Amino acid sequence: MESIENQQEEQQQQQKKNNNNVMEIETLSIERIFDSKEVPSWQEQLTFRAFMVSFLLSVLFCFIVMKLNLTAGIIPSLNVSAGLLGFFFVKTWTKFLQKSGLLKQAFTRQENTVIQTCVVASSGIAFSGGFGNYLFGMSEAIAKQSSDANEAQNIKNPSLGWMIGFLFVVSFLGLFSVVPLRKIMIIDFKLIYPSGTATAHLINSFHTPQGAKLAKKQVKALGKFFSFSFLWAFFQWFFTAGDNCGFIDFPTFGLKAFDNKFYFDFSATYVGVGMICPYIINISLLVGAILSWGIMWPLIETRKGHWYSADLSPTSLHGLQGYKIFIAIAVILGDGLYNFVKVLSRTLFGLFQQFCNKKTGDLPISGCSAPASPQISYDDQRRTQLFLKDQIPTWVAIGGYVIIAVISTIILPNIFHQLKWYHVVIIYIFAPALAFCNAYGCGLTDWSLASTYGKLSIFIIGAWVGASNGGVLAGLAACGVMMNIVSTASDLMQDFKTGYLTLASPRSMFVSQVIGTAMGCVISPCVFWLFYKAFPDLGVPGSEYPAPFSLVYRNMAILGVEGFSTLPKHCLQLCYTFFAAAILVNSIRDAAGKKWSKYIPLPMAMAIPFYLGGYFAIDMCVGSFILFVWQKINKAKAEAFGPAVASGLICGDGIWTLPSSILALAGVQPPICMKFLTRKTNARIDKLLGS
Amino acid sequence: MESIENQQEEQQQQQKKNNNNVMEIETLSIERIFDSKEVPSWQEQLTFRAFMVSFLLSVLFCFIVMKLNLTAGIIPSLNVSAGLLGFFFVKTWTKFLQKSGLLKQAFTRQENTVIQTCVVASSGIAFSGGFGNYLFGMSEAIAKQSSDANEAQNIKNPSLGWMIGFLFVVSFLGLFSVVPLRKIMIIDFKLIYPSGTATAHLINSFHTPQGAKLAKKQVKALGKFFSFSFLWAFFQWFFTAGDNCGFIDFPTFGLKAFDNKFYFDFSATYVGVGMICPYIINISLLVGAILSWGIMWPLIETRKGHWYSADLSPTSLHGLQGYKIFIAIAVILGDGLYNFVKVLSRTLFGLFQQFCNKKTGDLPISGCSAPASPQISYDDQRRTQLFLKDQIPTWVAIGGYVIIAVISTIILPNIFHQLKWYHVVIIYIFAPALAFCNAYGCGLTDWSLASTYGKLSIFIIGAWVGASNGGVLAGLAACGVMMNIVSTASDLMQDFKTGYLTLASPRSMFVSQVIGTAMGCVISPCVFWLFYKAFPDLGVPGSEYPAPFSLVYRNMAILGVEGFSTLPKHCLQLCYTFFAAAILVNSIRDAAGKKWSKYIPLPMAMAIPFYLGGYFAIDMCVGSFILFVWQKINKAKAEAFGPAVASGLICGDGIWTLPSSILALAGVQPPICMKFLTRKTNARIDKLLGS
Repeated sequence: MESIENQQEEQQQQQKKNNNNVMEIETLSIERIFDSKEVPSWQEQLTFRAFMVSFLLSVLFCFIVMKLNLTAGIIPSLNVSAGLLGFFFVKTWTKFLQKSGLLKQAFTRQENTVIQTCVVASSGIAFSGGFGNYLFGMSEAIAKQSSDANEAQNIKNPSLGWMIGFLFVVSFLGLFSVVPLRKIMIIDFKLIYPSGTATAHLINSFHTPQGAKLAKKQVKALGKFFSFSFLWAFFQWFFTAGDNCGFIDFPTFGLKAFDNKFYFDFSATYVGVGMICPYIINISLLVGAILSWGIMWPLIETRKGHWYSADLSPTSLHGLQGYKIFIAIAVILGDGLYNFVKVLSRTLFGLFQQFCNKKTGDLPISGCSAPASPQISYDDQRRTQLFLKDQIPTWVAIGGYVIIAVISTIILPNIFHQLKWYHVVIIYIFAPALAFCNAYGCGLTDWSLASTYGKLSIFIIGAWVGASNGGVLAGLAACGVMMNIVSTASDLMQDFKTGYLTLASPRSMFVSQVIGTAMGCVISPCVFWLFYKAFPDLGVPGSEYPAPFSLVYRNMAILGVEGFSTLPKHCLQLCYTFFAAAILVNSIRDAAGKKWSKYIPLPMAMAIPFYLGGYFAIDMCVGSFILFVWQKINKAKAEAFGPAVASGLICGDGIWTLPSSILALAGVQPPICMKFLTRKTNARIDKLLGS
Repeated sequence: MESIENQQEEQQQQQKKNNNNVMEIETLSIERIFDSKEVPSWQEQLTFRAFMVSFLLSVLFCFIVMKLNLTAGIIPSLNVSAGLLGFFFVKTWTKFLQKSGLLKQAFTRQENTVIQTCVVASSGIAFSGGFGNYLFGMSEAIAKQSSDANEAQNIKNPSLGWMIGFLFVVSFLGLFSVVPLRKIMIIDFKLIYPSGTATAHLINSFHTPQGAKLAKKQVKALGKFFSFSFLWAFFQWFFTAGDNCGFIDFPTFGLKAFDNKFYFDFSATYVGVGMICPYIINISLLVGAILSWGIMWPLIETRKGHWYSADLSPTSLHGLQGYKIFIAIAVILGDGLYNFVKVLSRTLFGLFQQFCNKKTGDLPISGCSAPASPQISYDDQRRTQLFLKDQIPTWVAIGGYVIIAVISTIILPNIFHQLKWYHVVIIYIFAPALAFCNAYGCGLTDWSLASTYGKLSIFIIGAWVGASNGGVLAGLAACGVMMNIVSTASDLMQDFKTGYLTLASPRSMFVSQVIGTAMGCVISPCVFWLFYKAFPDLGVPGSEYPAPFSLVYRNMAILGVEGFSTLPKHCLQLCYTFFAAAILVNSIRDAAGKKWSKYIPLPMAMAIPFYLGGYFAIDMCVGSFILFVWQKINKAKAEAFGPAVASGLICGDGIWTLPSSILALAGVQPPICMKFLTRKTNARIDKLLGS
């Protein structure tokens, strides 16, 4: 889950590079191209059809994000697919209407931005709702994997009611907290927001004639691979009668490697994810898998009986599993700390510079570097003009924040009895500052630190409440509150940037974000609920949906509350080593410069397979490999269609989980088991079946 | 096995069509293009390197043909791959020598033709040696599947010694019997020999500069798919520990369909074969599979207990298996009879016309149609001149035939005690006439009737010897003698045509054919021996190598010797019906004209899945489908590279059988069993393994 930010940054840098040429040409002319097209008023930008399409896509992406949450927890940026599919649906719809003569309003890029915003907001909740980390980490299924803190007061099982309520009271605060700052961030500070900018360029390109033609071809490629991926998932389903059956347990590299989680599991999703993620992420995952499952765990296993008791269950955190989880946590925290310090210092430095510029006008004073005095281009003029046209009064923002904060201070302690009203108040006092920091940092680096702030809350609130009062649960709940606020804040600002570049009104952006968030607050828990009911072994290690980060987050909370007493022998030393190593590797990456840093693996990405094993890393490397070969054969085509193909693979496999969970709920079981047996076991079975 | 001729005809017609444009342009100019190149003397055409390469390719193709023989018995034309690979090896070799300055003799198209001839002759023995039909049909493994005629005198198990001896004494007769007729067939009659002509054009094209460039690309494509196919076969191997394990038993369409032999077995070989065979062959196979395993066998099975005893073993020929085998035989015989009559009548009509022309000079007389008096082109002049330059004296041919006939008349009864010397003499008296008929018919239609003449011998000699004297074995042996003679005769004449068109000397063709045949007589039995030793369940129905036609041929022999007494109830009526239907469908095909006949399935192709089931038909349809889609996307590319890709798939998978059988001989067993179980069985097994 964490790595999402890492990889988004890398990826956006790649996108930026790709877009650079386009941007250079376009920046001077883009708004001139669109000059002939009238910009609709902000009410006209919010069409019913846009929200219909957004709703459909939200459901689609919610399934996808949920599936990713619960499998390996790596979520790539789905902006491209959201943009493409939104364009495709509305374009088809308007074309149809146009032919029947019923078209009242043409499809504009502003409307496209509204869809994009709404879908991203809604599917963002599927991530920040914590169904794959803090929220599901509260459940019994995860709690019973640890022998600590699994008493009733530290457990809260998922239920549709409280999940929707919880999301509604915490998800809107982020929006209101940063709305007043939009002019400062976008126009005065001119922050980049790489993702937002890239999305805006994509949307702008769709609405030029050549862009529309390319988009049509991309949609076709997406559709083809969507169907393939869906059918492949459907085909796989038939062979999964029973545990350890089917392609997901295919010992591609032999049974020995399979036991150490090295196999290709034929997942179209992660092959697609691998195609979207930069090579270094995939390589890092593989290196991490080899380091942990290939070297460390087998070595530690030889100490069985010495370092840890030999008769523990294989999932006990006092055994080998403990090393896996806690070393992974150490790396994640080390990486998180490093990036927290890095982004925060850049944020403060950036703010300091802005402050200097304001104070001195255009004259540099000592300690302040000289500001660039850019010529205001036609594009900037026009964009600024439209961005400032529709205002959102500051009292609305502050009023909204206060009202929602009061309501949620009353409601939250009723949902989580372990969390008292004063804990909530403290969070809400600090939250706007952190939300601003995150939105600003994200604008500079494209790096959302939402989960880092969440982890901070786990430790602070958890320690404050204390073990005996349900500190584990309180910590996880606090994490949820904080994550939702800071993550929606940075999302909103990204969307404002997209809106700025596509001449969409800030008001329509805000409304779209609010509606999208509301959709997400309902859709995400429902989708999670479907998974929860349909797959009874959700969260069980080694099952189809192990939800790896749920256990990681819960154990962070336990660590925060109970200290290091839960760790097996020598684990703490190993954790310190890996914590330091994560910081060191990150520093080397930053110090090495662009030329070399791309060959140094990312600690965060390396940590994920520590717990899960290498199978999804292999899927992703297959994706990388396909893209690599494709680029060798035809670079232009690979770059134009690679993301569409990847999105198709991800979406098709993702949406299959809908019929698959419905089948599971209806009690329809697949008919065949594809099983992999050793020669010896097979001979035994043939004998048993024969007799 | 039989269908090879059918499909070769169809295919060559396609090739002819494709080549037509080329031919029209080339016919006028091809020898002018090569004018600057000197034609080497016939001794120079027979280089050592050519025979080295031929030997290597012979081994390769022997494995492939043997594998095809023993799996489904459908053998596509491997001429293109032989031509391509021969070109590739010698070209690489000469290039290497050229660079090191050691090249003494440039690579000429004549040398290429020598390789082609040698390889085709050698791999021809792998087919006409009967390892997949008459010869293996003599063995105990096949005999014990039937309760009739399985006493010792009707059984002869394979053994390296007698097989090589047998092949040596019968395989050269065909060559000598038609050598004197080469001028009449090639120059006077101007027979077409579509395969030989197509091969000649291929070789000619390789040696023009553009042709060489294309050939290089084709070789690259072949190599790529060769590696893929080899690795895929290697990968599959790991999962085949035990019976019913691995991809070859993958119930792609469910377990119910699998029980009726409808599944895709992931065989790269048959996908490749499907890409080479014309669409109608593959569709015919599928139609046959649906008709038999989809409709007829399930219907007949409902009569179990009425039509045949319910407690017979599933492989007993008195039960359902009997219907499968004998109905298939009926269709094969019906189709064979129709084509025998058709080709023979065309042969006689053609001869009659030739006779007329000769008699009347250029003046037409009544009953003779007017002969075309073609202008002799430069190409024809030059080709005729070179073709007549190197003579093979008639006394060599007749002397050779008589000497070999005498030797084999002495040796054959010593190998097969059931076959007396007078049977052999009778065969050798008629053989030259039949060999001529076959060579002439093949020149007109590209249709070798070798197996039809073989079947004729089974019935005649079998009935003559009689059941009590080992008539079954005598019939099969006679079949072998006849098949070898007529098949090598038509092969040789094809090669003469190729030689004529590439300016290769008839002498070098003859020598190459003799050497190739000698190679084949040693290589084929050795390869078969490897299979026989490595896979103990060779010939067992449902195993990896069921050798389907072995049982079919043996049962033909039993039928010929014992009459219809062995058939289960109502089987004879069904056989009559299908025999008549095969003739009827063939007549309709011929009467319908080109436009419609391509939509009417071929009875011979339909008969093959009657016994085997539809799995390889599905493989082949997948191949057709791939080619179809490819042609839709890029017709030119598909036509240029389709055969190369298909050859790569076939060769890679085929050559894997070499390491696979060596592994089997060495006792190395695959480690994993990929098994497919019903949900119920799986639950039972999980319980058993758990306890």
